[in-house]
Amino acid sequence: MTLGKVVGTVVATRKEATLDGLKFMVVRAVDPEGRETGGHVVAADAVGAGPGEMVLIATGSSARQTVATQNRPCDAVIMAIVDSWEIGGVDKYRKD
Amino acid sequence: MTLGKVVGTVVATRKEATLDGLKFMVVRAVDPEGRETGGHVVAADAVGAGPGEMVLIATGSSARQTVATQNRPCDAVIMAIVDSWEIGGVDKYRKD
Amino acid sequence: MTLGKVVGTVVATRKEATLDGLKFMVVRAVDPEGRETGGHVVAADAVGAGPGEMVLIATGSSARQTVATQNRPCDAVIMAIVDSWEIGGVDKYRKD
Amino acid sequence: MTLGKVVGTVVATRKEATLDGLKFMVVRAVDPEGRETGGHVVAADAVGAGPGEMVLIATGSSARQTVATQNRPCDAVIMAIVDSWEIGGVDKYRKD
Amino acid sequence: MTLGKVVGTVVATRKEATLDGLKFMVVRAVDPEGRETGGHVVAADAVGAGPGEMVLIATGSSARQTVATQNRPCDAVIMAIVDSWEIGGVDKYRKD
Repeated sequence: MTLGKVVGTVVATRKEATLDGLKFMVVRAVDPEGRETGGHVVAADAVGAGPGEMVLIATGSSARQTVATQNRPCDAVIMAIVDSWEIGGVDKYRKD
Repeated sequence: MTLGKVVGTVVATRKEATLDGLKFMVVRAVDPEGRETGGHVVAADAVGAGPGEMVLIATGSSARQTVATQNRPCDAVIMAIVDSWEIGGVDKYRKD
Repeated sequence: MTLGKVVGTVVATRKEATLDGLKFMVVRAVDPEGRETGGHVVAADAVGAGPGEMVLIATGSSARQTVATQNRPCDAVIMAIVDSWEIGGVDKYRKD
Repeated sequence: MTLGKVVGTVVATRKEATLDGLKFMVVRAVDPEGRETGGHVVAADAVGAGPGEMVLIATGSSARQTVATQNRPCDAVIMAIVDSWEIGGVDKYRKD
Repeated sequence: MTLGKVVGTVVATRKEATLDGLKFMVVRAVDPEGRETGGHVVAADAVGAGPGEMVLIATGSSARQTVATQNRPCDAVIMAIVDSWEIGGVDKYRKD
């Protein structure tokens, strides 16, 4: 999985029918220090994530192993909202 | 998924038989600011996308989860045409 | 999928038994302008491609969705021989 | 698989239900000389790895082929704790 | 697939149970000229490869399509030992 920060949303009305109801978020990748790396991905939201939240992203076929994304043409999913992480015992991020 | 812009088409008459009827588009990757990144992919079209349109691309096995691409040797699909996206509440792209 | 040019062949007699009869080609990646990018892949041939031909490559599990590669430990396949492609209405490649 | 060193943990209480009980570790990639490469991944732990340990990571659908991760939206798993490795007969890492 | 050279081995006694008996090799990536590229992967061995040999590596779910790796958390496999390859009719590698 990769760490990321939700920064935006994508609207698409013309799409594969099975995608109806899925929410697509723009997520910027962050490194273990919490810095944005410059990378990004558009991910389906399986957990009700909102702008500014730190999340975990699963990609590939694993992105289809959620109730929201099963059997859909979706290759990236937000499957968890991050509360905190630590590196070497030092908090690098903690949700307010 | 990744954001991209449809810029061209590929013609291939000699191919795996199951690919008959699929349309292959050249799609340039764009970043969340709407700038081309230099990357590209050839994607099958599942939604009737045309030149100049911004689209979402799903790759890997997820690219086979559309009616058009199921069970075919296809690893990238246009599964949505983008109407708009925003970053931090600011529109970065809006279809005319 | 990615665009590529067939430039060579790989011979391997000691291999997983299911790979017998498959032909492995060295394929150099090309960009939408038809220039080699420096990347390459070794791909199984599902369509009878020859040296110098421009082809489409599918990777990952999608590489196993051809008659030739099904259920085999093969992660890249030539699934089409390219006749031509255009970008913005301008031919970038056309087979002789 | 890739070699990595466990350096931290991620806490996420709001997540896809099937992920309950899985432990997510921050793993820094190391090269065959044992040097950190700058890359990292968040991986589910299938073997009880702890901070500082060198591990093997499997990604993609292969990350779901463990008892702990089966059918879950997880694209990276620690599936082995490394005791040692050698390059050209020279030990590059040996666990204390 | 990618071309690589077997350069070492990894020992791991604590691992997912299904991995027992699998041999993990450190493989350096080589380009079509036979030069090491700087990349590497740890791959399971399905064909009895030894140090110094040039091999083909399959990754992702395709790495599980061998007798040795089926249903195991393994995302890279040596599925062939290379005898030789040529580029443009010129031998770039030939096994002694």
